[in-house]
This record gives sequence, C-alpha cells and structure tokens, in this order.
Amino acid sequence: MASTDQAASNSEFAPPRLPAGFRYAGVSCGIKASGNLDLSLIVCDRQAVGAGVYTQNQIVAAPVVLSKSRTPSSSIRAVVTNSGNANACTGEQGMRDARQMCDQVAGKIGCDPDAVLVMSTGVIGQPMPMDCVRRGIGDAAANLSADIDAFLRSVDGIRTTDKDRKIAYRTMSCHGQEISIAAMAKGAGMIAPNMATMLAVILTDAPLATDDAQDILGQATEKSFNQVSVDGHTSTNDTLLLLSSGEGPALADSERAAFQEHVNEISIELAKMMVADGEGASHVMAIRVHGATDDQAARTIAQTVAASPLVKTAITGGDPNWGRIVSAAGYANAKIEPELVSLKICGQIIYERGTPLPIDAAALSAKMKRSPEVSIELGVGDGKGQTEYWASDLTTEYVKFNSLYTT
Amino acid sequence: MASTDQAASNSEFAPPRLPAGFRYAGVSCGIKASGNLDLSLIVCDRQAVGAGVYTQNQIVAAPVVLSKSRTPSSSIRAVVTNSGNANACTGEQGMRDARQMCDQVAGKIGCDPDAVLVMSTGVIGQPMPMDCVRRGIGDAAANLSADIDAFLRSVDGIRTTDKDRKIAYRTMSCHGQEISIAAMAKGAGMIAPNMATMLAVILTDAPLATDDAQDILGQATEKSFNQVSVDGHTSTNDTLLLLSSGEGPALADSERAAFQEHVNEISIELAKMMVADGEGASHVMAIRVHGATDDQAARTIAQTVAASPLVKTAITGGDPNWGRIVSAAGYANAKIEPELVSLKICGQIIYERGTPLPIDAAALSAKMKRSPEVSIELGVGDGKGQTEYWASDLTTEYVKFNSLYTT
Repeated sequence: MASTDQAASNSEFAPPRLPAGFRYAGVSCGIKASGNLDLSLIVCDRQAVGAGVYTQNQIVAAPVVLSKSRTPSSSIRAVVTNSGNANACTGEQGMRDARQMCDQVAGKIGCDPDAVLVMSTGVIGQPMPMDCVRRGIGDAAANLSADIDAFLRSVDGIRTTDKDRKIAYRTMSCHGQEISIAAMAKGAGMIAPNMATMLAVILTDAPLATDDAQDILGQATEKSFNQVSVDGHTSTNDTLLLLSSGEGPALADSERAAFQEHVNEISIELAKMMVADGEGASHVMAIRVHGATDDQAARTIAQTVAASPLVKTAITGGDPNWGRIVSAAGYANAKIEPELVSLKICGQIIYERGTPLPIDAAALSAKMKRSPEVSIELGVGDGKGQTEYWASDLTTEYVKFNSLYTT
Repeated sequence: MASTDQAASNSEFAPPRLPAGFRYAGVSCGIKASGNLDLSLIVCDRQAVGAGVYTQNQIVAAPVVLSKSRTPSSSIRAVVTNSGNANACTGEQGMRDARQMCDQVAGKIGCDPDAVLVMSTGVIGQPMPMDCVRRGIGDAAANLSADIDAFLRSVDGIRTTDKDRKIAYRTMSCHGQEISIAAMAKGAGMIAPNMATMLAVILTDAPLATDDAQDILGQATEKSFNQVSVDGHTSTNDTLLLLSSGEGPALADSERAAFQEHVNEISIELAKMMVADGEGASHVMAIRVHGATDDQAARTIAQTVAASPLVKTAITGGDPNWGRIVSAAGYANAKIEPELVSLKICGQIIYERGTPLPIDAAALSAKMKRSPEVSIELGVGDGKGQTEYWASDLTTEYVKFNSLYTT
C-alpha cells in the first residue's frame, strides 16, 4: 500500500521533487502588453501518455479543436500554451495559427507535429500575433530545464487575471521508489474579463496506459473542475491535460486507487484555488447537498444555489438568509422534498424538516463574515444523491472589474 | 373589428375608465414598520370569472397553495393581498393564516370563503401578524370604492421594494360599447431582498368563460412574465390573476384575437416595468434570439445570455463585448450553429456568420451607455425558433442592496 507525503500545496511552495522526464520554460514574447510571461512550454523527452478533458461550450477555440483531436494518445511530446490571446472565434486563420504553433514546437524539439498539444487563453476574436509567438517558441525551446525555477516560469506563462500562482502536488511511495505528481492551473473566472479560461496540466512520472490516463483524468474532473463556479459562464477554451512520462516505478494494481485519490485531491485543490481567486471574490461557498434522488440531481441543486446572485450576495454580506438558499433549491431543475429540507450554515442548523429554527443571527453573521470558506449543507430529501461544490460570492468588485470598458 | 384606444400606460397616469364591476381599497395595517400601505382588497360585486398562473418553485407559499386550489373558477368575489410578509415557509400555521384571511374577507363582504383569493409578498419564514391583518381587512372592507383613488391605493398596497407604481390598461370598443382592461403588478426582482415577489392582477369587464380566461392568461404569461429576469431567482410566491366581472358587452368571436392581443400587450408592459425597476438596474437588455431549432430553444438561449453576469456587467459598462454574448449562447442547453452565429447590438451588426466585423467600438459604446434599453439580436442558426426576452443588467448597486445585512 502507498503512503502519502502530506505536502503543502499553495502558491508559496514549490514541489519538493518534480516528476521525472519533463522540462519546462516560460518566456515573455510580447503577446501581453505588460511584458509579463505569456508563453509556456512543457516537453517530455520520451513519448508521454496524454489525456485531455475540454470545454462543453459549442463555440470552441481553435487550440481546443486541435488538442482534442490529439488526445488520448501514447505519443505526446510537448504542450505549448500562450496567455494574452485565446485564439477563439478566429475562424480558419485561427486553426492555421494553432497548427503552426504545434509545427514550430515540433521543429524545435524534433518530433511529429501530432505529438504537440496547444492551449490558449486571453482576448477573444483577435488574430494571434504569430511573430511574437514564433519568437517565444524559439526562446522557450532554447531555455528548457527540469529545475524548479523553470517549472515556476512555465506556470507563470499561463496566467492571465490570476492573482495567485496555482500549483498542487503529491508524492507517493511505491515499494521503496517514489512517484511524483505535480500540477499547475490558471483561472479566476470561468471566463474572466477578456475571455480568460480554466487551464490545467497534471504531470506525473507514474507509468499509465492511455485509456487509464483518460479515465483517471475524467474521474478527477467530475469531482473537481466540474464542481466549481465563479460566474457560471463556461469558456470557449477550457482545457485540462494529464501527461505521464512513465519514468517512475510501475503502479501495482493495489496502488491504483491511491494514485486516483491523489489526482482527485490535486484537482480539487486547484479547482478551489480558482474559486478563491475568483474575480472580486471575498468568500468561497462550500456547498454540500445530500438526500437528493441521485448525485446528478444533487449537483444540479448545488449549481443552482451557487449561481443565484441573491445567495452569492447574502454570503458576501454575512447574511444567514436561509430563505434565499432554500428557495434556490426549490427552483432547481431537480426534485426536492420541501417538508424534508434542512440547512446548516457554518455548521449551525437553522432550518430543519421544512421549519426555521430560532438562532442567534448576529453571532452566525459574524462567523460567516470572518470565514474565508462558508459551508452550506443542504438536505433536500431522503435519497442517496449527494455532491460537494465550490463557488465564489458576488461583490461590487466583481461588477466593477467586469463592467469597466477600456476601449 | 375592434378599434384600440392607444392609452399611455405608466406610473404617472391612471386608467381613464376602470373595468365595471370592481371596487378597491388599500390600507396601512401595521405589517410594514414604515407605515406604508400594506393590505389591498379588490372585490367584485357579482361572481367573477377568475384564472391564475403560479410560481414553478417547488417551495410554495401558503397563499399560493390556497389560491391555486381555487382557480380557475366562475365564482370569484375578492382578492386580498398583503405586502411585508410572504407567508412562505411558515408550515401549517401559514396555511391556517392564509385560510383565515379569506374567511375574514368572506365574512365582511358576505360570500363563500372559496370565492376569495389571497396573495402575499414580503419577508419569508415569519408568522403572519394576524392582528394587523384582521384590522386591515376590516378597514379595507369598510372603504371599498370604484373610484380611481381607491384603485391606486390598492396598487400601492401590494408594493414592496418597487420604486414605481406598475399599472397598464387598454380599452377596446365592441360594436359601439366599450370594454376596459386594467392591470397592476409589483416586483423589482424575481426575489427582492426579503423575498419580494412578482404579483399581478388583470381586471376586465369583458365577459369570459372560465376556460377562456385561463387560456388567455396562460398565453399572455408565456409572452411576458415568463420572458423576463432580474436575477434568475424564482420566488416562492409569484402569482398572476385575471378576473372578469362580465359587466361589459360580450366579445364577438372576431374580437377574441384583439382582446388576447391587448392582454398580451398589458402583460408585456408590466413585465418590462419590473425589469426596468429591477434592483439597481441601469439598463434593460432586450434580447431577441432567432434561427433556433424551435421557440423553446430560443428561449433557453435568451435566458442563458440574460443570466450571465459577464453579459450583464458588459451592458452595465457599455462594453460591446460580443465574445461574452456569443459564448453564453454556446453554453446554453440548446443547439446552435457556431458558423451561422450573428449578433447585433443597438441595431449595429458586429458578428456575422461566425466572424467578427470591424466596428467603431467607441461610438457603439457611447450609444449603449445612453440607451435605457439595449437591444441584443442574436442569430444562432437557420431554424424557425425565435423569442423576445427582457432582463436587467447587474450593477454595484444590486450587490450593495442585496449584500447589506441589517439584523
């Protein structure tokens, strides 16, 4: 059985050991006027297994179309990502540009263009500044390194409106040897001001079969990235990748579940970082729904509660306004049992079996205000369906940030 | 064929002639601490036809349960409405209180309790202050009048956070005689701070069969009250009523369509007044979707665009950010054809067949900022489905208003 190194995972700490087999670079190539890093390259020196999960939006950016066609695969060599331009709604030219980005990387590292994945995030509807991109790919390929600094630069190269660097990692010992999982993400809104996006890459040296990699990523996504919302607005560019270099020790069958659990935990950590970094967010709402007819019904109810501006603003103001939460559950497109509905906020029961209970509202309000994460536990019946969901609240800062027109 | 009196309908004007057969009262009975009017009574001196449309929320307030069980009907005599307390989530006591309100009205005007409908709006989860209500019903019954002042007081008695009085009316001449339709509504959010609600009553003297009344109200609702959103949060108390005293001239079959059209127009006017009066709203978004697979798909797309905080804040800021609108359509739960998508804002085409067009963004932004109603016309394919939908934008005032905790 595997043991866990309970590593701290936040923006201040770098992974103690990166997965074997990968090299990194992050450069500034002029896509962002600010001069911040805007191009990131991750290269695996042997053929990696690669899995991908992509946006459900019907309007899909060119890099998503291309990467989606190339995963799952057992022969991935690189991921190139630019920030500052989403290459979305850019028509045929956008497809040519995305393809060219992969071709240029392939030329630099000597591989088949089909072995390169591409992600983009930033402004929508603008042609890619391909002169900048070409220069950036050259710079990045010339500066690849397996060290921590290069890894951190590759993380910074994918950021847009993120205030914080989003990294999570785990190590796991397998019969005396060590496996490493390290992941990066960006996102401060499902869509940020200029079509920012949720991107994440999970890297490991654990050898994985292609189908297993896709399955592990899919399972982790269901519990993490599909369970968060800042503003409910699904981007055209969302991309989540899992790459395995295969350079670590093979997992025993008995170690598979632990590995999946580590990937789940990393994914949840990254997803929660996005919500906490949500534009203007002052609190994370941690919503647990139980007693629904099934897990999907529980998720629908949690999503509906999370999306209600009246619930969000109540949490912003530290208002234990249970009526807003209960009534949001009532209009979700999933069955509830009104006479069995119960609600806890910050662990305090305030509504039970359809009846409000007397509470010290001022004390609960004070507790809500000082909790960065406000827990909302909602029972909706006696079914077995349950879910955990995380969302940001809604502040005047969010509105200011997103209504400021700068043209 | 009927001719139309193109009457002005806004808060400054009272109907020139009220429908024959109704009397009104609005009183202050102490439910609201402010002393504002908080109880309204409408009485028909003969048995009226009554139709109702009610909230789709699974959590339903007691007055909704009771009124819903009593419509449609051919023997309605009165509607009693209180503001300041929603009588929602109040359990068995709430049902007893709603029933008692009807019984008290029935006692005062001498009718069967089943002939009385009841509506409530205000704070959720608080027991009804029945001493106040009883006194208010007595006062109202003693002050019923058919004059305009009494009508306006009955309108004011149903208001909560509404800044404006919401009235619409039409007259229609039928072979030399005149039919009148007059309507009132309240609502400044699907749910306002303390569970305000959308309530509306449409009164007419046109004789209607019970089934016809229900059918006319249902058709009008589909085109109006079901096509608006402030914050997407469906109340537990929404109630729309149509009452016909039958004292006017009978409609010829050829006049039915014109009558329906008048009721539709009145309903749309009232619905748009609610959106314009939406909490903190600075603009109305008038969203027209065409080319969808069917009308329901068009509505789903319009609702999704209307609910996106990123679209709402772009309109607040006068930002012609077509990417937010197009991508919201892309994640709606309805099929679109990305390569056929087109978009006009304030009549200006800015995206056509999946491709952005060059525009003078500063000029369009200035136009958006000065337009109280910003039109958004979105083509999503070559289907026949279309819809018109109205929603408010999202401002810092909305967030302040709804995050201010006053306990």
